[in-house]
Amino acid sequence: MAEQVVDALTTVLDGRWARLRGQLRERMTATKLADSYDLDPETHRAQVFEQLRELVATGHPKLGFDREYGGEGDIGGSVVSFELLGYGDLSLMVKAGVQWGLFGGAVQMLGTRRHHERYLRDIMTLDLPGCFAMTESGHGSDVQHLRTTATFTDGGFTIDTPDDDARKDYIGNAARDGRMAVVFAQLVIGDRSYGVHAFMVPVRDETGRPMPGVRIEDCGPKAGLNGVDNGRLWFSGVRVPREALLNRYADVAEDGTYTSPITSDGRRFFTMLGALVRGRVSVAGSAGSATQRALTIGVRRAETRRQFARPGSDEEIVLLDYLAHQRKLLPALATTYALHFAQEELVAMLHDVHSAPSQDERAQRVLESRAAGVKAVATWHATSTIQAVREACGGAGYLAENLLPGLKADTDVFTTFEGDNTVLLQLVAKGLLTDYRDNFADLSPLATARLVAEQLMGAVLERLPARKLGSPELFDRAWHRELFADRAQHVLAGLARRLRAAASSDADPFEVFNDAQDHVLLAGRAHIDQVVLEAFVAGIERCASPSAATLLNRVCDLYVLSTIEAERGWFLEHGRLTPPVAKRVLAEVNALCRELRPHARTLVDAFAIPEQYVATSLG
Amino acid sequence: MAEQVVDALTTVLDGRWARLRGQLRERMTATKLADSYDLDPETHRAQVFEQLRELVATGHPKLGFDREYGGEGDIGGSVVSFELLGYGDLSLMVKAGVQWGLFGGAVQMLGTRRHHERYLRDIMTLDLPGCFAMTESGHGSDVQHLRTTATFTDGGFTIDTPDDDARKDYIGNAARDGRMAVVFAQLVIGDRSYGVHAFMVPVRDETGRPMPGVRIEDCGPKAGLNGVDNGRLWFSGVRVPREALLNRYADVAEDGTYTSPITSDGRRFFTMLGALVRGRVSVAGSAGSATQRALTIGVRRAETRRQFARPGSDEEIVLLDYLAHQRKLLPALATTYALHFAQEELVAMLHDVHSAPSQDERAQRVLESRAAGVKAVATWHATSTIQAVREACGGAGYLAENLLPGLKADTDVFTTFEGDNTVLLQLVAKGLLTDYRDNFADLSPLATARLVAEQLMGAVLERLPARKLGSPELFDRAWHRELFADRAQHVLAGLARRLRAAASSDADPFEVFNDAQDHVLLAGRAHIDQVVLEAFVAGIERCASPSAATLLNRVCDLYVLSTIEAERGWFLEHGRLTPPVAKRVLAEVNALCRELRPHARTLVDAFAIPEQYVATSLG
Repeated sequence: MAEQVVDALTTVLDGRWARLRGQLRERMTATKLADSYDLDPETHRAQVFEQLRELVATGHPKLGFDREYGGEGDIGGSVVSFELLGYGDLSLMVKAGVQWGLFGGAVQMLGTRRHHERYLRDIMTLDLPGCFAMTESGHGSDVQHLRTTATFTDGGFTIDTPDDDARKDYIGNAARDGRMAVVFAQLVIGDRSYGVHAFMVPVRDETGRPMPGVRIEDCGPKAGLNGVDNGRLWFSGVRVPREALLNRYADVAEDGTYTSPITSDGRRFFTMLGALVRGRVSVAGSAGSATQRALTIGVRRAETRRQFARPGSDEEIVLLDYLAHQRKLLPALATTYALHFAQEELVAMLHDVHSAPSQDERAQRVLESRAAGVKAVATWHATSTIQAVREACGGAGYLAENLLPGLKADTDVFTTFEGDNTVLLQLVAKGLLTDYRDNFADLSPLATARLVAEQLMGAVLERLPARKLGSPELFDRAWHRELFADRAQHVLAGLARRLRAAASSDADPFEVFNDAQDHVLLAGRAHIDQVVLEAFVAGIERCASPSAATLLNRVCDLYVLSTIEAERGWFLEHGRLTPPVAKRVLAEVNALCRELRPHARTLVDAFAIPEQYVATSLG
Repeated sequence: MAEQVVDALTTVLDGRWARLRGQLRERMTATKLADSYDLDPETHRAQVFEQLRELVATGHPKLGFDREYGGEGDIGGSVVSFELLGYGDLSLMVKAGVQWGLFGGAVQMLGTRRHHERYLRDIMTLDLPGCFAMTESGHGSDVQHLRTTATFTDGGFTIDTPDDDARKDYIGNAARDGRMAVVFAQLVIGDRSYGVHAFMVPVRDETGRPMPGVRIEDCGPKAGLNGVDNGRLWFSGVRVPREALLNRYADVAEDGTYTSPITSDGRRFFTMLGALVRGRVSVAGSAGSATQRALTIGVRRAETRRQFARPGSDEEIVLLDYLAHQRKLLPALATTYALHFAQEELVAMLHDVHSAPSQDERAQRVLESRAAGVKAVATWHATSTIQAVREACGGAGYLAENLLPGLKADTDVFTTFEGDNTVLLQLVAKGLLTDYRDNFADLSPLATARLVAEQLMGAVLERLPARKLGSPELFDRAWHRELFADRAQHVLAGLARRLRAAASSDADPFEVFNDAQDHVLLAGRAHIDQVVLEAFVAGIERCASPSAATLLNRVCDLYVLSTIEAERGWFLEHGRLTPPVAKRVLAEVNALCRELRPHARTLVDAFAIPEQYVATSLG
């Protein structure tokens, strides 16, 4: 019976790419990969490169590339394959992500036929290991202002690193294996700069030596991901031909004439970045996998480890029977379910938008915003959950052989790379504000506020029956949805009003925005919370098994009520909850923990993580 | 001017052991220790052992031992010296803690003259490296029920490990260097067990080989602290003489007669544990040092790193000018100040209680509760703050050479060792409840509740003027103290009522306690919050410099208001804040961040951490 529920849950979790997930899981179960927790960095790097070659043999790296060049044209499937890699050594996942996601993805998405024909096959087979050289020491989040230059002269480009601040930094595949790099640089023709463009630049020759004019340095040991060879690159007068420019969005003719379908340098750059959104979606997905893996290990431990006897008895109590232990693991487990459904939806959105024959700008913008927000929330959730699991496993959780130290150390940088989370949440909010501006550009602040209130609340009330907020039924999903939607919209509307009011004064624009930065972040977060809840609800609706759906509904209740509990300060401040209702929410979270405790193992088993990645001495 | 404020702050932070702190700092500044972030575990262990020898040469390990045996009899000073070690390689701090704190401390506190004369000098000089063998694989938090046995026969004891579950686990100094171990075992005489006692057991001979009957295994790589050789120990029929029993609290005569001034096995065991409280205080202190170190690194980075230009300008903005960045670092910095003052007070309390000629049971109980609570709060704060600093330093914070990865990994287990934090916070609450029980044992729940309310609120109101909670002056320290005290007492009184009511029914005692476990933890936490605030207030009162005191008062305001902000759900639910006041608290936290931003460097400089421990490429 429990097994049937597990299978039914796995089916609904697997979603649209269920068949592929099944295949990948089978292969991962059949292939026993070597552990890496006890390797020194050099051995680890060598092992990861070897495993990268083994991945080529499976054909999975071809998933995301065009059929025309031997790929499979399954964009969503390629992200799903990174998600599954997220159950294993995360150095391998990141190294694969660099080679096929970032490097290969840049060639595919920013290049044209000439680049595809020349490079894509060798990229898929790993005959051309490559780097994605965007970040510089001085410009990490603000990559639009990176300072490497590509100067057009004599029918080609010269790549230069003006100073150490502009060296390429933290570049995966650079310290050991990369032969070619997609280098992002300010394109200069004559005395004009056209903004950031991407260039194919060889960095090592066939024997592995740096190319003339290229200097390479190893970034050295990191907190984790030491199987990935991050390095630094300096360029000094490195010549590449005119065709090295990845010219999907802009080109330079032989005579130096610059052409682009996008006139604004800034907009062109952000269009390029938008084309690369797949990497962000993959990081969100593998953060989810790492979280699921930690929770599987943590729940197994909590179900077997005993400590302290029941009063008047010799029988020692299983850790997961303690309310405090349930509270450490079960709300995090519920949130992990919620984020999984949001991730599924995001992958489908990415697949559909990027597989569409013509570009839908509005859909692309929603996709970028969603990817930024889900990545931020999912990676912060990974950090806090893996930390909680480590603590819940006590000293045993601190031993490297029990995998949690590696999981913690490897995922730590997920909140930073592919976009710093704080910057990403601001992107979400700015995207939402842009919608406001488009719609209400010429209205006064007051009129805007009123319109926002009417329109958005109208939209909500259309979908959901109105109710008195004072005395809700705490398990009423319609109330949950209304509460989350109302919060997202209220925070955003307040922010819009506040910025509008300040903007119409003569205040310094930076100060205005900075004073509201916590409000901005909250707006992004509240929006994503709503998106995640809606995805969970939609996921449950797809569940064919009534018993699995019943269980999922309780998990969703726990997600919602524990989120409300964590955010109850806001809900109370804004009159969305009364104090007695807030107290009931706490009590119901406890009750749900008790109710779901017997199902904890079922819920983690449903992640169906291949046993080799979750088998530890922890139980 | 700023320098004078730094010095004045350092003076008040240094407190009672200022002279010793100054000496230790001077020595640490003069001695350049080798880095450890890039060492393999074996080299790291060797380096730490070598540094341990160098520590001997300084004489500081003698601080905590009795003058009679060559020590200095300065208990508080010994804890302070561990605090200062907390600025450096934490493996060295932990290894020193094992040798002189746990092993040496157990000999001193649980042994008598015969043990002191025989062992203490060799322990201080490191001629006798030793282990503290308490934890077993099956019993970590619940050490009262560990299962190693010491059976008295033929005038001596036989030490046995009944099964793998009872092996000694995670024992520092065991895998490589320890020669002797204080082994905690169930004392068995004839067919009776007398509970846990401690025995001096040789584990290696002069050549470093395990003694007959002793099996030793290496715990292997850990998340951090890999300079410490944690190991596992099994004993099979290991004979030790009758004098091996550390017999301060119990003895066995030649004829096998057992005597103890404490009749209850449980009470005797907890008295023994209580004598060892110094270790817990030291961990709290070095967690504070690690936090200060991370914040110093993080603030320096935030003051130099720039990202994104001011609108309409080429000038890029310093990270610490962003409100979101201030919010990541400054409330954590304020809390670090608060916890430092609480730690100072705790060290003084430990020193006075343990230096007193006669034992004060009540004072000892308060000390144990305070140590448990401050350790829990300080180590959780370390984990979250170091994490926040790592994220605030972006990818550069992930590089091992920039020290944050080591700080994160090493301190991670602080929330677990010397008592799991969740267990410790429950100890705090149970201690407070015991006070209740002693005072109100024969009252009905309702009468208890009423009495509690009257007595405790009476005590508060005596000290602080009563005020309407609806419209407070947010920077009124009296209101802060009243609010924190009221919360601690309200939560505790509610808990007492709840447990009393349930206990008088025929409910299962475990279920009763377990259902209230979140309430129990909150009671412990709220009590410690109050303790910490009172310590901060007392610290400011000791500050002789008016300008430093003014700054400290603002830091205290930020500590208080950011704590209220984080806990505002509770305050709103319980009618302690109105929604408008809660919103004002958020706004004032922002305002305080802006106000304190120019002083951030001053505040971290005042920690006066020797430069070699905070100099990184991060600025």
